[in-house]
Amino acid sequence: MIAAIREVRAFRWQGSESQETADHLAMEEPMEIRLGGTPVAVTMRTPGNDYELAAGFLFTEGILSHAAQIGSIVHCGDPAGADPKNVVDVIPAEGSEGTAPGWQRRFYMTSSCGICGKASIDAVRLAVPRLEDGATFEPERIYPLPERLRAVQPIFTRTGALHAAALVLPSGELEIVREDVGRHNAVDKAVGACFLDERTPLGGRLLLVSGRASFEIVQKALMAGVPAVAAVSGATSLAVDLATEMGMLLIGFLRGRTMQVYSGVHRLSRN
Amino acid sequence: MIAAIREVRAFRWQGSESQETADHLAMEEPMEIRLGGTPVAVTMRTPGNDYELAAGFLFTEGILSHAAQIGSIVHCGDPAGADPKNVVDVIPAEGSEGTAPGWQRRFYMTSSCGICGKASIDAVRLAVPRLEDGATFEPERIYPLPERLRAVQPIFTRTGALHAAALVLPSGELEIVREDVGRHNAVDKAVGACFLDERTPLGGRLLLVSGRASFEIVQKALMAGVPAVAAVSGATSLAVDLATEMGMLLIGFLRGRTMQVYSGVHRLSRN
Repeated sequence: MIAAIREVRAFRWQGSESQETADHLAMEEPMEIRLGGTPVAVTMRTPGNDYELAAGFLFTEGILSHAAQIGSIVHCGDPAGADPKNVVDVIPAEGSEGTAPGWQRRFYMTSSCGICGKASIDAVRLAVPRLEDGATFEPERIYPLPERLRAVQPIFTRTGALHAAALVLPSGELEIVREDVGRHNAVDKAVGACFLDERTPLGGRLLLVSGRASFEIVQKALMAGVPAVAAVSGATSLAVDLATEMGMLLIGFLRGRTMQVYSGVHRLSRN
Repeated sequence: MIAAIREVRAFRWQGSESQETADHLAMEEPMEIRLGGTPVAVTMRTPGNDYELAAGFLFTEGILSHAAQIGSIVHCGDPAGADPKNVVDVIPAEGSEGTAPGWQRRFYMTSSCGICGKASIDAVRLAVPRLEDGATFEPERIYPLPERLRAVQPIFTRTGALHAAALVLPSGELEIVREDVGRHNAVDKAVGACFLDERTPLGGRLLLVSGRASFEIVQKALMAGVPAVAAVSGATSLAVDLATEMGMLLIGFLRGRTMQVYSGVHRLSRN
């Protein structure tokens, strides 16, 4: 069992009174993702589901496309003394194209993505798979989702400091839920779990996020073939641009029985 | 006037009814920060206060220590066609040590920070200036801060999708407020404005953030010499570790007349 929560002593202040109490903190530690021994990225994450995070990151950033490219995933330290639990190496399958020349360059392209907004959207559009055409979602199945997500967010409930991402089936069933201090990590963990199960691309799903819909969230959803994103908070301009261009359903401010639909309204059915 | 907000058409759904309305989005665009022509980082940010962001980033990451090291700051494109408004070059003053050999290595150290939590805290501890000893803050001046911040958050009020950071004087006066889609960018903009005015280190201030207190927020505050951080949401484990080690006042869940104090309680006065 990996510790995603740590208990600490804190002082609860109310007005001018204070009392020492137990409090629970969301764990946050840096994790280095390697591919075949080569460092790719360091991310501040909540420990747990580390293999999903590493695989999901390599998938949503366009470096890997199929789970069969992966031979094994291991935690590993190094001679400089890095903590083994915070270094994850994704070892390509023998003969796989996972380490084909050029992936470093491809990663560079998707992570720093062309500087100007237009160029980055262009780069993403070239990289993402076509969205499955027919997927639609019923508003009445979407409204209950934030409450359902909170009900199954074990860490957030105790720490108040975690983001969550869920992949949701058209029936409204939460297929998978992951939490992390980083919103993008929560998405990578949820997508990575499906990727490792060879369930990608994730056509016909909706990605629900507890916070805002930013560019990187929409980008990662598109890379995974997810045709719909719903956020409890607002959306940013670049997220709306990309979602509009790709015909993705993008929902913000999903609260109670209201929501703002920024793009892909044709994916909402009125059944 | 730089556009930090964009108006779009969206569909407001309520139950099974929808209506087309105007909505406002927080702008999000990538910005490349260069030092003397060399790319240092790309960050997704809300356009505006770009020079503060670039200078603040270079300061809070330990690459620059004094505004006098800066000759000029300019927006610049490049032959590959990057949008000039999204590339900012900080040009060192003549004879400055700003481009001394080794800054690239130093930056690498602070950004990927040693992989294991302990190593990264050690690296930061070596880099940060000593916190000014005497600074204390009165709870009655802290409680009203979130409401005061919301009152002056012009973009958030219209988009619901922006983070804010404020430097606060012991009197409770908001010295400077900045907003951004990235929490760390909002901090870099606020600190960067003071850095460019040669007001750093920022002893005696409290840094107020609209979201959570994560490791990077505490790290940036320490680099700027700020002895107190207060967050409207929770704190993460690594943030509490670092604040505790440095004797920083770290407050989470600042709401109404309550707050959780995770470290540095000696900096709270009961006057």
